[in-house]
Amino acid sequence: MEIAIMLYDGITALDAIGPYEVFAATMKCNVKFVAKEKGLIKLDSKMGYMHADYSFSEITSADILVVPGCSPPNYKAPMNDEATLNWIRQLHETTTWTTSVCNGSLILSAAGLLNGAKATSHWGSFELLRSLGAIPTDERVVRHGKIVTAAGISSGIDMALQVVAWEMGEEMSKGVQLILEYDPQPPFDAGSPHKAPAPLVEQIRGMLQQFSQKEPNL
Amino acid sequence: MEIAIMLYDGITALDAIGPYEVFAATMKCNVKFVAKEKGLIKLDSKMGYMHADYSFSEITSADILVVPGCSPPNYKAPMNDEATLNWIRQLHETTTWTTSVCNGSLILSAAGLLNGAKATSHWGSFELLRSLGAIPTDERVVRHGKIVTAAGISSGIDMALQVVAWEMGEEMSKGVQLILEYDPQPPFDAGSPHKAPAPLVEQIRGMLQQFSQKEPNL
Repeated sequence: MEIAIMLYDGITALDAIGPYEVFAATMKCNVKFVAKEKGLIKLDSKMGYMHADYSFSEITSADILVVPGCSPPNYKAPMNDEATLNWIRQLHETTTWTTSVCNGSLILSAAGLLNGAKATSHWGSFELLRSLGAIPTDERVVRHGKIVTAAGISSGIDMALQVVAWEMGEEMSKGVQLILEYDPQPPFDAGSPHKAPAPLVEQIRGMLQQFSQKEPNL
Repeated sequence: MEIAIMLYDGITALDAIGPYEVFAATMKCNVKFVAKEKGLIKLDSKMGYMHADYSFSEITSADILVVPGCSPPNYKAPMNDEATLNWIRQLHETTTWTTSVCNGSLILSAAGLLNGAKATSHWGSFELLRSLGAIPTDERVVRHGKIVTAAGISSGIDMALQVVAWEMGEEMSKGVQLILEYDPQPPFDAGSPHKAPAPLVEQIRGMLQQFSQKEPNL
């Protein structure tokens, strides 16, 4: 299967690398990192780079498209770039699955793919997702037809394992999980706003809102 | 804090990006991707690259060193490269925590850091880890003094969250977990050899053993 992972400056690396690693481990996927222009892609932390091996013009179809998220407000640039939105629309016409991780769903929304659709995003972006016409749905992986959106950052691993199960079967998904030794044991149980201490949730929500009101500075 | 993540050709991206994302999300860490020579680093899948922003000669100390793993047999090159092993030894003298993910612990062993030490690795590399003088320990995150080894690939996320808790406190670790929305919900419970179906475990064990007997071809 052909997998296209869209990259852009200011991206969150794990959003892209989680699904990449799952699809790569199937040994049945040809994963391509694609950006408007090929070359180095700045991470949101400003502490490193990813690398786009292909430009949009070189990749005109895919079985699975993955649109990763980013730290706010970095989604504003791709959401306002017609070439990016047109490329997403073009690939979406060819895909079996169109997917996003974290606030990558905001970019899918900007491309017009989530109007009236159930979708998820990072928990801090639900209001913005709603304002763009989607129906925010508080589940880790949300399927709406062939569009699959995942919650924040690390959820791309779960999303890709689910897509692998649908597309290649349960045994393959289990095999990939075993290769990745994905038997999570975080030291605390604070990975969702329903589980973390309320003051911590509000503190981080405020920080994310503040970031989201800025303009990208990459 | 200064974090050095060692890169080398044939690396598994998630081994490096899991801990990177955790440390980056603290917003109190300066994370540096370091390799023998700076520039593009080939992934084990041969389907992409990471980027080393620093060479070994530029980074002579770190608070935390992360040595990620790779698909077998790619660890053979760094394990047999004196410049790499010397750099690890040099940094280890300066660290508060020296860590590995997956079979990165084989590289720590080759550097002489795990003689008689409890350590973990990818479940498929336990015998090799034992043959190098460590005491394989079937836990997801194993601490031996200031050396912290993590199990396969995805376990680097848990390892880094644990190190953040030790070094910066529980609240910070929970905050990072919430930012990453690390509330894992894989579709199956097959992420360890104790949980996956036995025939699948044996199939993947055989495949990994076959790979491990090859020579690196990058």
